[in-house]
Amino acid sequence: METLNDFSRLSLNQITTNRWSVREAVEGCAWAGIPSIGLWREKVQEYGLAASKRVVADAKLRVSSLCRGGWFPAASKQEREARIDDNRRAIEEAAELGTDVLVLVCGPAPGRDIAAGRLMVEEAIERLLPDAQAAGIKLGIEPLHPMFAADRSVIVTLDEANRLVERFQSDALGIIVDAYHIWWDPQVLPQIKRAAGHILGYHVSDWPVPLPDILLGRDMMGNGMIDLRSLRAAVEEAGYNGTIEVEIFNRAIWDTPGDEVLALIKQRYLACV
Amino acid sequence: METLNDFSRLSLNQITTNRWSVREAVEGCAWAGIPSIGLWREKVQEYGLAASKRVVADAKLRVSSLCRGGWFPAASKQEREARIDDNRRAIEEAAELGTDVLVLVCGPAPGRDIAAGRLMVEEAIERLLPDAQAAGIKLGIEPLHPMFAADRSVIVTLDEANRLVERFQSDALGIIVDAYHIWWDPQVLPQIKRAAGHILGYHVSDWPVPLPDILLGRDMMGNGMIDLRSLRAAVEEAGYNGTIEVEIFNRAIWDTPGDEVLALIKQRYLACV
Repeated sequence: METLNDFSRLSLNQITTNRWSVREAVEGCAWAGIPSIGLWREKVQEYGLAASKRVVADAKLRVSSLCRGGWFPAASKQEREARIDDNRRAIEEAAELGTDVLVLVCGPAPGRDIAAGRLMVEEAIERLLPDAQAAGIKLGIEPLHPMFAADRSVIVTLDEANRLVERFQSDALGIIVDAYHIWWDPQVLPQIKRAAGHILGYHVSDWPVPLPDILLGRDMMGNGMIDLRSLRAAVEEAGYNGTIEVEIFNRAIWDTPGDEVLALIKQRYLACV
Repeated sequence: METLNDFSRLSLNQITTNRWSVREAVEGCAWAGIPSIGLWREKVQEYGLAASKRVVADAKLRVSSLCRGGWFPAASKQEREARIDDNRRAIEEAAELGTDVLVLVCGPAPGRDIAAGRLMVEEAIERLLPDAQAAGIKLGIEPLHPMFAADRSVIVTLDEANRLVERFQSDALGIIVDAYHIWWDPQVLPQIKRAAGHILGYHVSDWPVPLPDILLGRDMMGNGMIDLRSLRAAVEEAGYNGTIEVEIFNRAIWDTPGDEVLALIKQRYLACV
């Protein structure tokens, strides 16, 4: 049973403490009593895959996810193949790190034809599913906010993510629900319900008003307009009881000492999430 | 029949030349051979309603729309009533200016309950429809991009706008399709088709990458990632053959001499729209 100071489901997505190395983030979590961490490939590469695995094990943390695979669409077939290969490596890294979820940020279209970009995503996922299945990794499609449609992801609604999941009917494919990306959607509650059984992660942050920046504008839970309690209730009603990752791209938070950020996360997790 | 240099459907939304008064914008359009203008209430108030009407008539321009009514949700019933009253004045102003379309930017929710905000929009539209009908004015719901959901409009998809139009079944209610706000939507083409017979305006601009700013980031047609030709084809297949308004919030464009902006608009209108 979850109590008022139960942090068992809390996870730090490593981007939230962007200045920290894997080692610093892992040790920060252990010190703060945060039991899980979402790692980023770039950081893992910097610190080394084996070393990252070791430091996580030493700290007895759980790796809730690896960010990020995806970025599938490209103008040439050769480039699309190269990206599929890179995602195969990401699947291997995820397995090596002991997580079962690779987060997919699907990427932008190579030109103005966004529908063509969406087809490229679909094709790439189809190609990768056998690899994911063989490695025991689930691919988590994370629909991004529509303001990222031109430069980060052609998949911008839970409806699209659900459609892909339903098309492939694979245990190795599911959805990452990130509050910042989906809270605005008039269909958010029925779409979360529709995703029942396929939710692989729940990410939280907040949407301040005014939003100071597109990429780095998101803020600490409680500092914005997202009804986080309702969204959490919806993902739980849909059967999700896994980790809740705090993922905040925000320069001011990055400039704050990590231990202070983690203390504030714990406070806001209890008060707002 | 539309020819290669036919500007008969082109309209300047006045915000695009934000430093110009009503008189300057009207005379600029007349000089440039742009036959229609979308006026803004604030500018009309500055210049005077009667004077605005006169200068438009003298220049033999058509007023394609008045921006903007809406901004319906508010915490107190008293404030919501005040906003409905203000929209009644906007309807009167639109009629006086000789346009038949009042653009609605529906407004943000007063708190975190966005569904409650949407209900307030629905209630306000229901209240205003008899006034609009009596004045011969059509209310055009403009779904804004979801990145404005927290501070400008709880109505952020064509789906929601279509739902409202279908609910009220009134000749006095329709939809403004603005390419910048809706291009990202995986359902954009079927939703435009669904809006057939209810499209009251088509607005164009473009989405540059990276988007430099949320409110002022949109750019001149051709400078971004929106497939404007496909969207225009879709609104035309849905039976819309009215004006095409160029509406660009962009400080660099505002800082450019208006006559230069209008010349560029004409060029890009032919090349990209």
